[in-house]
Amino acid sequence: MSRTAEELAKFLGCAVEGDGSVELSGVAAPGRARPLDLIYVDTARNLDRAARSQARCAVIAPGLTLAEKTLLRSANPKLAFARAAAWLLPSPAISTGIHGTAVISPTAKLAPGVGVGPYAVVEDGVEIAAETEIGAFCFVGRGSRLGKRCRLHPHVTLYPGTLLGSRVILHSGAVIGSDGFGYVAGEGKHWKFPQVGEIEIEDDVEIGANTTIDRGSLERTEICAGAKLDNLVHVAHNVRIGENTVIAAQTGISGSAVIGKNVAFGGQAGLGERCEIEDGAIIGGQSGILPGKTIRSGQIVWGTPARPLEKFKEQFAWLGRLPRLAEQVRKLEKAIIDK
Amino acid sequence: MSRTAEELAKFLGCAVEGDGSVELSGVAAPGRARPLDLIYVDTARNLDRAARSQARCAVIAPGLTLAEKTLLRSANPKLAFARAAAWLLPSPAISTGIHGTAVISPTAKLAPGVGVGPYAVVEDGVEIAAETEIGAFCFVGRGSRLGKRCRLHPHVTLYPGTLLGSRVILHSGAVIGSDGFGYVAGEGKHWKFPQVGEIEIEDDVEIGANTTIDRGSLERTEICAGAKLDNLVHVAHNVRIGENTVIAAQTGISGSAVIGKNVAFGGQAGLGERCEIEDGAIIGGQSGILPGKTIRSGQIVWGTPARPLEKFKEQFAWLGRLPRLAEQVRKLEKAIIDK
Amino acid sequence: MSRTAEELAKFLGCAVEGDGSVELSGVAAPGRARPLDLIYVDTARNLDRAARSQARCAVIAPGLTLAEKTLLRSANPKLAFARAAAWLLPSPAISTGIHGTAVISPTAKLAPGVGVGPYAVVEDGVEIAAETEIGAFCFVGRGSRLGKRCRLHPHVTLYPGTLLGSRVILHSGAVIGSDGFGYVAGEGKHWKFPQVGEIEIEDDVEIGANTTIDRGSLERTEICAGAKLDNLVHVAHNVRIGENTVIAAQTGISGSAVIGKNVAFGGQAGLGERCEIEDGAIIGGQSGILPGKTIRSGQIVWGTPARPLEKFKEQFAWLGRLPRLAEQVRKLEKAIIDK
Repeated sequence: MSRTAEELAKFLGCAVEGDGSVELSGVAAPGRARPLDLIYVDTARNLDRAARSQARCAVIAPGLTLAEKTLLRSANPKLAFARAAAWLLPSPAISTGIHGTAVISPTAKLAPGVGVGPYAVVEDGVEIAAETEIGAFCFVGRGSRLGKRCRLHPHVTLYPGTLLGSRVILHSGAVIGSDGFGYVAGEGKHWKFPQVGEIEIEDDVEIGANTTIDRGSLERTEICAGAKLDNLVHVAHNVRIGENTVIAAQTGISGSAVIGKNVAFGGQAGLGERCEIEDGAIIGGQSGILPGKTIRSGQIVWGTPARPLEKFKEQFAWLGRLPRLAEQVRKLEKAIIDK
Repeated sequence: MSRTAEELAKFLGCAVEGDGSVELSGVAAPGRARPLDLIYVDTARNLDRAARSQARCAVIAPGLTLAEKTLLRSANPKLAFARAAAWLLPSPAISTGIHGTAVISPTAKLAPGVGVGPYAVVEDGVEIAAETEIGAFCFVGRGSRLGKRCRLHPHVTLYPGTLLGSRVILHSGAVIGSDGFGYVAGEGKHWKFPQVGEIEIEDDVEIGANTTIDRGSLERTEICAGAKLDNLVHVAHNVRIGENTVIAAQTGISGSAVIGKNVAFGGQAGLGERCEIEDGAIIGGQSGILPGKTIRSGQIVWGTPARPLEKFKEQFAWLGRLPRLAEQVRKLEKAIIDK
Repeated sequence: MSRTAEELAKFLGCAVEGDGSVELSGVAAPGRARPLDLIYVDTARNLDRAARSQARCAVIAPGLTLAEKTLLRSANPKLAFARAAAWLLPSPAISTGIHGTAVISPTAKLAPGVGVGPYAVVEDGVEIAAETEIGAFCFVGRGSRLGKRCRLHPHVTLYPGTLLGSRVILHSGAVIGSDGFGYVAGEGKHWKFPQVGEIEIEDDVEIGANTTIDRGSLERTEICAGAKLDNLVHVAHNVRIGENTVIAAQTGISGSAVIGKNVAFGGQAGLGERCEIEDGAIIGGQSGILPGKTIRSGQIVWGTPARPLEKFKEQFAWLGRLPRLAEQVRKLEKAIIDK
């Protein structure tokens, strides 16, 4: 389906400059764009590439211009472009209708418009709200409840009792609701501590490929609305991740950690048990936060053990200056002896 | 099914104080417990929460008391609670009977009471002992042998020839017996070194979601009895992990490492090739152990490269004192010049 | 099938010493070898083990000798052994023929000799070249194109539009072509940036279990010929990994990083966005490379932030000497005061 620049401008709430009748059917980077693709330009640095693009229409920041192209003005061109992409290119269906090979319990309740792909398994007592799509080989354990318009790519596993809000996106290989890692040592062995708590993923969460999120042991694991987790992230039992927090790939979060809203994690960060990360903190890639520590709201930390970024940088600089410092000391010793 | 406090006390070998006839059907944290749930109290700090709980029965440490509740005395309340949980709440079945969609080779031998879930695949020559449960979408490669009462959650992959002891628990997405990462460089490319060795997981091992364990190349990869591996752990070819060793999430163990008994790994630790970790050592989270290094029995190490914890802490403290040290040197220089 | 030492020598281009008629049907480590197994000896240190082996034939380095065994001379015995293994023991079939339970779109094109295992799903418009084997539960998304003689172990997911060259090996749980992790913040939430780019894996690439490789956002993710990725590796959108680069387990590569040829990564390394790693560089295990940094051709780096290995070692040594340096300063202060 194609739209005109004018229709798109109306959808985005942008002003149009130039020919509003140019048609658009996709989005692209400037160097790969074809005439029907939308591009975006957020800084003057990207103007040249955009000018050479075959695209006929661009979302563009105030103060920039491109000859011979239709321009959609936006204070945040990248955001407008993202919204335009979702509007021009709705996500392709993961599954349409109920595939004949899907194994669906007679006690499961599927709302109208739910899609279930080949070889998916939906167990007893599951409830799936309207327009949610379940990919091939997904496993939806008994008693799970899924909101509207979720997208489960192929090979997602939901352990029994998993709760998903609406518009949750789960990528392939994600495992939700597995047992937490909890044992009690005694009599020369490790006894499994009960892992019978809850697991809830709220609205608009997206979870990357092969990420694992354990259920609560006796409490609840909770991923709050709008949080985004990259691939291969580990979330242990009883963790709470606040609204709109963003966690890059391969980060690991230990049991009972409490993470606020709008926190940002670099990749491969590690949190010890019962950490508290307050709203808006930024955790640098590969940082390690000790068990029980609190990172204050808005703080930026780095390193293992994690410390404020400025302190890390200062210490790192001193580390580089050590040979010189040692040389100074040697000279002083010599000077003292000489006297 | 519910039991009385008295029956549970007998199972646990505890003394009962108060009404032994109260019924129990589950376990919970104090704040979430309903009247039929068991709770536990291991320190005085948790007494208040427990006193306010709806639970009518608690496992409790010596010297503590709670009015109006039935008390089961235990020197290790958390352990008693874990044992009680397993007794009151047997793990729900992963699969019961052989699902009609399972593809099972005619040459596979399944003992009585084995469960195989929908769309599982069991290849030629596989042997599965009594009461083992195979979840949906599990793949059991040819010639694998599984002991009694194993639990394979949905989406587990066993490469051909995998050996599992009894009571092994494998969480979803675990991959056991994949090829190790071994190549020989020559003539401008990497030639695959044969990865045709063995893989054995002994009794009572539990392996987390999306963890990967490679088979031996020419030798054997071996996870000994009672070891527990968390999610997203990587174990390379020819590794040996000793009895009751515990490995937290996202730790990676390189080829031919030898790990003793009762070793504890924090999350995201990394071991180089041919490391040796002796019995009872403790490897801090995110530590990195260089190839070929030995960590002695009972040692606690941290950092990359890993060093004894006390040394790490001392060096870290010095790092923080460097600005002051430099200031001292500056003053000394000035003093010398002034003289 | 067994071969003679003489036939093998001809295949490898080696000289034979001793009885060329001994038969060979497999490969093994010296301690485990049976009479029909080939072993190899690359250093004098391994001669004793080899001498005690039941094996009757060894590939051996120049200048070494073993009594009573047939010797195949090679300047690179390990390479010759790897080549011999592939010749004596062809990889066992993952799938033979099209299993009756596979769901294959009528618009998919499968060349002769393609194998598709039980419960695999091959979507619309897929093209699979000759002799490629698709394991059980593999998902091949619409429009994907797979070259010749690829091997997809069970439980591999290819998102729509994935391109694989020839002889690509994908281990179980690998996810190829998932959405990159890209959002635009605005109006108090994270908007999904379009993840509609391409993903191409070239010839002779091998990818480990549960590794995830995201598609391009607007551009392309590309794993070039001969690259080898271990288990649980993360590759983000728009990354390019050059020919014959080798990446150990649990390494994570952020968006738009460009990695040259013949680069070697230790395990658990992390690369920031838009890094550039030039040909032949070596990135130590657990190293962290800051966003936008360049590592020069042939450099060896370690640590976070990554620095040249020599510098890391020097700084690490200084860290250990700090207590002594502080003691020197204390003595100087005392000396000054005493004067």
